[in-house]
Amino acid sequence: MKKIQALLLAGGSSTRVWPVENKLLVSFLGQPLILHSVNQLYRKGIRDIIVIINKNNENAFKQLEFPKGCTVKTIIQDKQPGMAGAITSAAPYWKGKKILIVGPSDIVEDYLLDEFAALYAKDPQAVLVGKHMEEYFPGGYLAERDGVITEIVEKPDPANLPSSLVNIVFDYWQDADSLLSAINEVRTGRDDRYEKAKEVLIKKGTVIKLLPYNGYWGYLKYPWHVLAISDFYLSGIKKRLGKVKIDKSAKIEGEVILEDGVTILENAKIAGPAFIGRNSLVGQNALIRQSHIGNNAVIGYSTEIVRSYIGHNCWFHHNFIGDSVVLDNNSLGSGAVIANYRLDGGMVKSEVNGNLLSTGRIKLGAVIGRNSRLGVNCSLMPGVKIGSNSFVGSGVCLDKDLPDQSFALLKNANYEVRKNRVVLTSKAMQKNLEALKY
Amino acid sequence: MKKIQALLLAGGSSTRVWPVENKLLVSFLGQPLILHSVNQLYRKGIRDIIVIINKNNENAFKQLEFPKGCTVKTIIQDKQPGMAGAITSAAPYWKGKKILIVGPSDIVEDYLLDEFAALYAKDPQAVLVGKHMEEYFPGGYLAERDGVITEIVEKPDPANLPSSLVNIVFDYWQDADSLLSAINEVRTGRDDRYEKAKEVLIKKGTVIKLLPYNGYWGYLKYPWHVLAISDFYLSGIKKRLGKVKIDKSAKIEGEVILEDGVTILENAKIAGPAFIGRNSLVGQNALIRQSHIGNNAVIGYSTEIVRSYIGHNCWFHHNFIGDSVVLDNNSLGSGAVIANYRLDGGMVKSEVNGNLLSTGRIKLGAVIGRNSRLGVNCSLMPGVKIGSNSFVGSGVCLDKDLPDQSFALLKNANYEVRKNRVVLTSKAMQKNLEALKY
Amino acid sequence: MKKIQALLLAGGSSTRVWPVENKLLVSFLGQPLILHSVNQLYRKGIRDIIVIINKNNENAFKQLEFPKGCTVKTIIQDKQPGMAGAITSAAPYWKGKKILIVGPSDIVEDYLLDEFAALYAKDPQAVLVGKHMEEYFPGGYLAERDGVITEIVEKPDPANLPSSLVNIVFDYWQDADSLLSAINEVRTGRDDRYEKAKEVLIKKGTVIKLLPYNGYWGYLKYPWHVLAISDFYLSGIKKRLGKVKIDKSAKIEGEVILEDGVTILENAKIAGPAFIGRNSLVGQNALIRQSHIGNNAVIGYSTEIVRSYIGHNCWFHHNFIGDSVVLDNNSLGSGAVIANYRLDGGMVKSEVNGNLLSTGRIKLGAVIGRNSRLGVNCSLMPGVKIGSNSFVGSGVCLDKDLPDQSFALLKNANYEVRKNRVVLTSKAMQKNLEALKY
Repeated sequence: MKKIQALLLAGGSSTRVWPVENKLLVSFLGQPLILHSVNQLYRKGIRDIIVIINKNNENAFKQLEFPKGCTVKTIIQDKQPGMAGAITSAAPYWKGKKILIVGPSDIVEDYLLDEFAALYAKDPQAVLVGKHMEEYFPGGYLAERDGVITEIVEKPDPANLPSSLVNIVFDYWQDADSLLSAINEVRTGRDDRYEKAKEVLIKKGTVIKLLPYNGYWGYLKYPWHVLAISDFYLSGIKKRLGKVKIDKSAKIEGEVILEDGVTILENAKIAGPAFIGRNSLVGQNALIRQSHIGNNAVIGYSTEIVRSYIGHNCWFHHNFIGDSVVLDNNSLGSGAVIANYRLDGGMVKSEVNGNLLSTGRIKLGAVIGRNSRLGVNCSLMPGVKIGSNSFVGSGVCLDKDLPDQSFALLKNANYEVRKNRVVLTSKAMQKNLEALKY
Repeated sequence: MKKIQALLLAGGSSTRVWPVENKLLVSFLGQPLILHSVNQLYRKGIRDIIVIINKNNENAFKQLEFPKGCTVKTIIQDKQPGMAGAITSAAPYWKGKKILIVGPSDIVEDYLLDEFAALYAKDPQAVLVGKHMEEYFPGGYLAERDGVITEIVEKPDPANLPSSLVNIVFDYWQDADSLLSAINEVRTGRDDRYEKAKEVLIKKGTVIKLLPYNGYWGYLKYPWHVLAISDFYLSGIKKRLGKVKIDKSAKIEGEVILEDGVTILENAKIAGPAFIGRNSLVGQNALIRQSHIGNNAVIGYSTEIVRSYIGHNCWFHHNFIGDSVVLDNNSLGSGAVIANYRLDGGMVKSEVNGNLLSTGRIKLGAVIGRNSRLGVNCSLMPGVKIGSNSFVGSGVCLDKDLPDQSFALLKNANYEVRKNRVVLTSKAMQKNLEALKY
Repeated sequence: MKKIQALLLAGGSSTRVWPVENKLLVSFLGQPLILHSVNQLYRKGIRDIIVIINKNNENAFKQLEFPKGCTVKTIIQDKQPGMAGAITSAAPYWKGKKILIVGPSDIVEDYLLDEFAALYAKDPQAVLVGKHMEEYFPGGYLAERDGVITEIVEKPDPANLPSSLVNIVFDYWQDADSLLSAINEVRTGRDDRYEKAKEVLIKKGTVIKLLPYNGYWGYLKYPWHVLAISDFYLSGIKKRLGKVKIDKSAKIEGEVILEDGVTILENAKIAGPAFIGRNSLVGQNALIRQSHIGNNAVIGYSTEIVRSYIGHNCWFHHNFIGDSVVLDNNSLGSGAVIANYRLDGGMVKSEVNGNLLSTGRIKLGAVIGRNSRLGVNCSLMPGVKIGSNSFVGSGVCLDKDLPDQSFALLKNANYEVRKNRVVLTSKAMQKNLEALKY
């Protein structure tokens, strides 16, 4: 597939995924999502890659280390929005190439690329991937006949779906120039010019083959989707311990990766699947189950983390963190708890762009952006999100999203001071302390 | 004692014992209280038993499994209140039987039955049991001469007690029919017709023997009495481990019963006397001391339970539960704490029917009914009671009883949101996190 | 040095060190500070000691056991304030003695006494000790030429220091009578008559030798200084285990002293340097790092104590205590947390006599006086101080100092009660509990 130039769409941004800032830079198993995508393409023989970024994530992308032997260009998307903008930004670099457009936040299994390779060998004019979905998904649906796509319907009425096949962004075009022409033919100011261009091409007679796919499909539309992606990556790991220090009383159970420099202290337990990044410390009595922990984290004394994603440089002690996403550089004070289950056992809801959405999960904790601090004994309610650079004061019970750069703190003091009328004499004290002992 | 028909009084109900609903169905060592009573009678040779129930507990009683070889009838009490009503309800089933009236929430030791058997062998007309009490008890007192009861005084003036002998409901009548006649002679609309009937019989010349008893007497008048009863049952157990899974780092110390299906995870400790019911799980680092745990409970990670009674299907993690009664189907969020000791070390009080009573305990936590949920980081004050189907919100510090089907939640939010004026630069963050590490 | 009479200044009192009451009676490694001072003098050959006390600490001092073979007189300071008053109070006991004036809350290393002994052998007229300080210290500064002190400047302008040598109270006077005369010559009502007298003596030609000292200097000006002194004493200890009971799963690491009667339960860890006084108990899973614990303490289940000073008879469980001073007879309810780090990572401040001072520490928890009680799930903010005989109610987030004999409690209730509209049917409960299990 050396003639293919892959176009990775990394220039978009979405408020839906807040407080995740650069979703393609969220790190799994030691690599940001974008590198997982690049490496997957590289693994399957694609060596010519253009990554369309934007001005906001430019600096972060510059620091990535792409695989050796792979030509990766990063290009800032021009002012046109959407995928069409990404494609036209990359057009100057096409030179008779075949084009594969990839959405790197769509996580797919390697075998999709193998199946694509097999189809590619038959030199099709174009290929789109369709995943059979049991439930309605708010995306593009593909209608097909005999393996050829007849129509593409964006966000159809759920009551009247053209098929059960949802289009995953993994679009192959043999003739990039005719794709470009089709885009230019579409006269619309909206961000769906690429989608319209496909229709134009179908009408003009381009034969677009359907590549059906029934493997895992991960996407990062809402911030809690980080958990599903983390689960996917964890599901594939095998036990591997780097240069680590593990106290003999600690227990490592199941498929667990501990990267170099990890320290596991007394009586801690890691129950796989779990990943712990470089130089992280797991303190006394801590319990980590089915979770993903970044680098340089301190999972301090008596902390339980379950089914959660923890970024780099996080610091906890005496905490419970369940079904939560905690991005980089956060710390929780002692006794801070992230609740992951409603008292009524109902579906957890979360606010996105002003609308309260069902997250589809009955267990979901919080999502915390970067550089935030939680005070001691505070509580986060299920589905709450905290922005970056924000503080939650001690004792606060946070039941709503907290924006970036904000401070939630107890109203005035939560207490009053009176004269203490009880006088504890030495004798009373002694009796008192004796009573406490048992 | 095959000619005796035992009459178990299970039809009464009392608001004093709230939030305990059917006190005779509270389960100890795997059996509800009523079965302990039936089995005790069976063990000592009584095989003909009538249980007087009421419409509210009819369904629950139907599901009980009485011992094989024992004839147990359950009869719904007629409209007459009190013990007289129970007796007249059962009267149609008496056929020349001798009658033993038993209060199955009065827990006594087997040797009372042995002593009764010895006395019964002498064919007495009637027997009442008197327990010597050091302190005043609000019940019926027995005056006696030469082993024969001369007077029965209901709730006498504490300053003027006829004796120190309190009547425990374990009343034997050789001639059931004359008892019934005596009851029918009493003209009163109140619920003390049975008590008055005894006086009638004494006057008529019935010789009622006193059976003195100095063993354990448990009663369930107030809900915290569950703790004393639990202590009694625990005090008699011997170590017995069913088909269980115990991690090798866990510790089982003293007299502990673990029923089939129990799992004990890493570094947990059970210090006897303790009972843990079928299929319950004790999580990592948990500590259970001198407590009774029902079936299907999850005593999760880092939870301490001490001197407490826990019902079936309860679920905890990161909690402290001391000197408390937690009935079936309850869960506590992470960090929820039941305080069991006043700051001033004073006697714990609790409200019963609108009156604040001294519980006689300096260590007492909470009593929680069925099907309730406590949020994360909430606190219950000593002596507080929570009804069934109630929720306590996260962060709430509950200092009063919470009725059935109620929700205690923080007033509005307990916090306000400001702009966070602190900007944590990358460098500051790094320094910050370094500081946290030590 | 048998001709020297040491004068220990123990009669002063200061509100700055509140809630520490008698700072010289704070116990380190099993001995109050005053005894450390007396023993140090004794160790180096000084056997004639006068301790100047006051009426308030008279009773406490009477209970001290001074070293055998050491003549120790305790004298109540007369009405004159300051060091001059202490000196004149002791004057009647001088009989041609040489005088060494010692501030027993100034903790110094033994080698200062060795160096003093060497200088003393040369029979100097007077000696003052100067410690080189890198940063400004609000005390007396010494100017010197060729080892002889030329001037003493009390609290000089930081911008214009006469030298970097700060005077530590360890003042030797060969001729006590001329010191007394000089004090009497000073006409001032203020408490600096002793300091002025030194100037008089220099002017009169007394040659005061400088003894430079570069070792450890501990002082107890503010209550958090207890931590630095504790660190100093801990830094010198070697592992020593008395008659103790240590569960085989517990871990003792580094230099740790456990006095007789100490019990260490399952999976506890003590990481040195650490000192634990007589008959104290360390509960299951507790973690003690770099801390000093008094006698008869209960460091209960799942408690972490780090870099802290804990007095006698304290009782904790499920707590985090970091960088804190907890004096005698205090208890913390389950889940009470002492925060030791600001959310913004800034220097911790504390109020002293109405002024908010920087403590010079970015990690500092609380200082708690004697006989106080903290409720469950309460939180103390960094730098907060609590007086003696005070209570902090459950759930309170204490952000200001709490005076002696005070009660901080939640304003009214912090919650409201509504009807719970959720009805958890048996089936829903079961599903609910199943969900909780995973």
